[in-house]
Amino acid sequence: MTSLAQRLIERKRDGGHLEPGEWRALVGAYASGHVPDYQMAAFLMAAYIRGLDRQEMNALTDAMLATGASLILDHLGVGRVDKHSTGGVGDKVSLVLAPLVASLGVAVPMMSGRGLGHTGGTLDKLESIPGFRTTLTLAEATRQIERIGCALIGQSAEIAPADRKMYALRDATSTVESIPLIAASIMSKKLAEGLSGLVLDVKRGSGAFLPDLDRGLELAQTMINLGADRGCDVVALITAMDRPLGRACGNALEVEEAIHTLRGEGPPDVLGVTYALGAEMLVLGGAAATLDAARRSMEVAISSGKAAAKFAEIIEAQGGNPGVVDDPSVLPQAGACEIFLSPRSGIVAHVEPRAVGRGVTALGGGRTRMEDKVDPSVGFVITAKPGDIVQQAEPLATVFARDRAGVEIGLAALKHAIAIGDEADLPLPLISHRVTASGVSPFQLD
Amino acid sequence: MTSLAQRLIERKRDGGHLEPGEWRALVGAYASGHVPDYQMAAFLMAAYIRGLDRQEMNALTDAMLATGASLILDHLGVGRVDKHSTGGVGDKVSLVLAPLVASLGVAVPMMSGRGLGHTGGTLDKLESIPGFRTTLTLAEATRQIERIGCALIGQSAEIAPADRKMYALRDATSTVESIPLIAASIMSKKLAEGLSGLVLDVKRGSGAFLPDLDRGLELAQTMINLGADRGCDVVALITAMDRPLGRACGNALEVEEAIHTLRGEGPPDVLGVTYALGAEMLVLGGAAATLDAARRSMEVAISSGKAAAKFAEIIEAQGGNPGVVDDPSVLPQAGACEIFLSPRSGIVAHVEPRAVGRGVTALGGGRTRMEDKVDPSVGFVITAKPGDIVQQAEPLATVFARDRAGVEIGLAALKHAIAIGDEADLPLPLISHRVTASGVSPFQLD
Repeated sequence: MTSLAQRLIERKRDGGHLEPGEWRALVGAYASGHVPDYQMAAFLMAAYIRGLDRQEMNALTDAMLATGASLILDHLGVGRVDKHSTGGVGDKVSLVLAPLVASLGVAVPMMSGRGLGHTGGTLDKLESIPGFRTTLTLAEATRQIERIGCALIGQSAEIAPADRKMYALRDATSTVESIPLIAASIMSKKLAEGLSGLVLDVKRGSGAFLPDLDRGLELAQTMINLGADRGCDVVALITAMDRPLGRACGNALEVEEAIHTLRGEGPPDVLGVTYALGAEMLVLGGAAATLDAARRSMEVAISSGKAAAKFAEIIEAQGGNPGVVDDPSVLPQAGACEIFLSPRSGIVAHVEPRAVGRGVTALGGGRTRMEDKVDPSVGFVITAKPGDIVQQAEPLATVFARDRAGVEIGLAALKHAIAIGDEADLPLPLISHRVTASGVSPFQLD
Repeated sequence: MTSLAQRLIERKRDGGHLEPGEWRALVGAYASGHVPDYQMAAFLMAAYIRGLDRQEMNALTDAMLATGASLILDHLGVGRVDKHSTGGVGDKVSLVLAPLVASLGVAVPMMSGRGLGHTGGTLDKLESIPGFRTTLTLAEATRQIERIGCALIGQSAEIAPADRKMYALRDATSTVESIPLIAASIMSKKLAEGLSGLVLDVKRGSGAFLPDLDRGLELAQTMINLGADRGCDVVALITAMDRPLGRACGNALEVEEAIHTLRGEGPPDVLGVTYALGAEMLVLGGAAATLDAARRSMEVAISSGKAAAKFAEIIEAQGGNPGVVDDPSVLPQAGACEIFLSPRSGIVAHVEPRAVGRGVTALGGGRTRMEDKVDPSVGFVITAKPGDIVQQAEPLATVFARDRAGVEIGLAALKHAIAIGDEADLPLPLISHRVTASGVSPFQLD
């Protein structure tokens, strides 16, 4: 006899549509173990190839959300806004944005992930702060947000467990890069945060999860539609990931750079992306009338020390050492370091983010499998940017490693990642497009 | 890190081609448990939707064959020919064909399956003969074929274990009805029989596995190509399965009808399909120069009693009671029976094979799951054929059941299966097409 799962697999296999009740039944039975992995794997491959329509994406989002608990934050009386990035190398913007935006009166219930493959993860970075605890219960997170406006947590077993289980299965069965499945997965977690608004940082370029601009725009528009159907306003910016963002790549090194940025001393690209995303968050959260006004309040929050103080407050609330904000040297320090010198004179043609990310992993600072442990101290600080004119033996970067053997691994990775040539490829604009419910427009500062 | 399985899933997902060594690696790793069910399920769905080219079907066939053992029969010095049917209701032709063709000097190493869903299986039918053993080892089967020219066996764990495992997975994940996957599955088992020729009975019509003629022809041509690439000549006939074949539907009842047919007393449609498939087998096996000559020798084998004697010889060799051939009443007998009368006067519009097959299963004579036990005694003998003019209360069929409750189930099933109307649908021709390496031609008797 044919089971419900078999009939739904067959329908999606032949390009058909599943009703909301059918999504609920399938996802619920999978979460409870009544549909085995192999049936869900076949279904997800059919969904990958045949696609999902808008009603199906909504139904899948709801079905995954319904398998777990949610934050209830409506009683706060302020906007609740998070930022989601599709992932990159050197992307420490979340660490800056969350305290910056929370210091200006918008609640930021931020749920982040761990690094995997060449991309880093905000949770790993936060955990390099001595004592910092990311595994809050939803009740703890709610109380902390009520009290100080922000909590930085991981996707606990309480949140959309079906999404966790399906994501792990998709990872093992080559069905990750499907825009409907990605959009429903992100949105189920974001709705569980009880958001009123969401800002999306969609990376493009060689180091991005979806390198093509067209696919990035498609994801942005899909997320905007999904959000619109669920009372969550979504705005997306398309940003460059054809080179690492900022200079530091590696967990503790990125925390340090984030702290510098919160003090107004960060690299211009980190600051630029932070201000652009933060302005959207403040407007969505009702704390600023225009993007321009939002930007001016952020400048004040940074120059006055209010944003850095908020970061210290969050760190303390989550068990970490708040002294890190004044003295980043309390972060774990690498056992050995060495400067990487330019092998020749010329122009920096490119700094390949995937190669840099894989280099961090090779140093022990990233994961190839979800169960790997990471070394928070290792990584790179790369000062060279595409287009820079450099002399032979000029310092381009510093390797931070566990020991001398690690230094050699790091130097070899940089040699591969940083290309010096006679002319530079034109780098992508840092922020190229802004996508809202009204459509796509070129990004420009007011 | 991406595993080989993930990379191959990804390639097939995107419509790409796998090399023979890749098929070997994937299928071998799956058979040995190194690739989990969920990865193979995702791969099979991608293969279902994207398809396989001819080289890939050959490679998959080889890869599945290589996971098990084969019969080595080349030393016999005679043709080795089997028949494969895509499955139907009332199809007892294998039981007639195997002894008939073997009695004329062609070796018949016949490997059959069990019934599932609405279709019956030759193994279940054979096992209704008291003592008959279908679980011969390959060594036992080889010795029996050397001695008497035929063995009737099941797919043991020795034969293409990867195919068994993949078939069970496809059944659970709605990836059965893929012509490349079906063709490779059949061919891997048939090549394991050491065949020089194969005759294919492709059913069409409402009771067939592939109801559409076009899909049946596609399967036939695919199998012919696969056979041609492997030194096994394949000929296919397209036969009708818009009504049951013959009169008896149910295990012991079909054995009895097969014995009548071996004596020349069977229903004309069973005899017609048997002669047509048998003639192809004899020509492929080198025992007849033309189809016409083959048909004449079969008529003699039947009228002389040689074919029936060969069946008794096979039954005895496999531990069964050969007396069944002279006295079919030694077969298990049903506990209760009742005649089904026409509810009205009119024309038999149709006898729906799926409804009849499901009726046999409802009586306990079939399976809904592979682990179900079957009752050999139950079933139907349906004398009414589409197009017959019948009077109200005229006998149309007999129900054979375990008990009175079973009789009621059987009568209800027949009421649903046999439609009496004012005009008959035109039934499909019994045998409509002949397909060989030269192409498709309308079937005609010489």
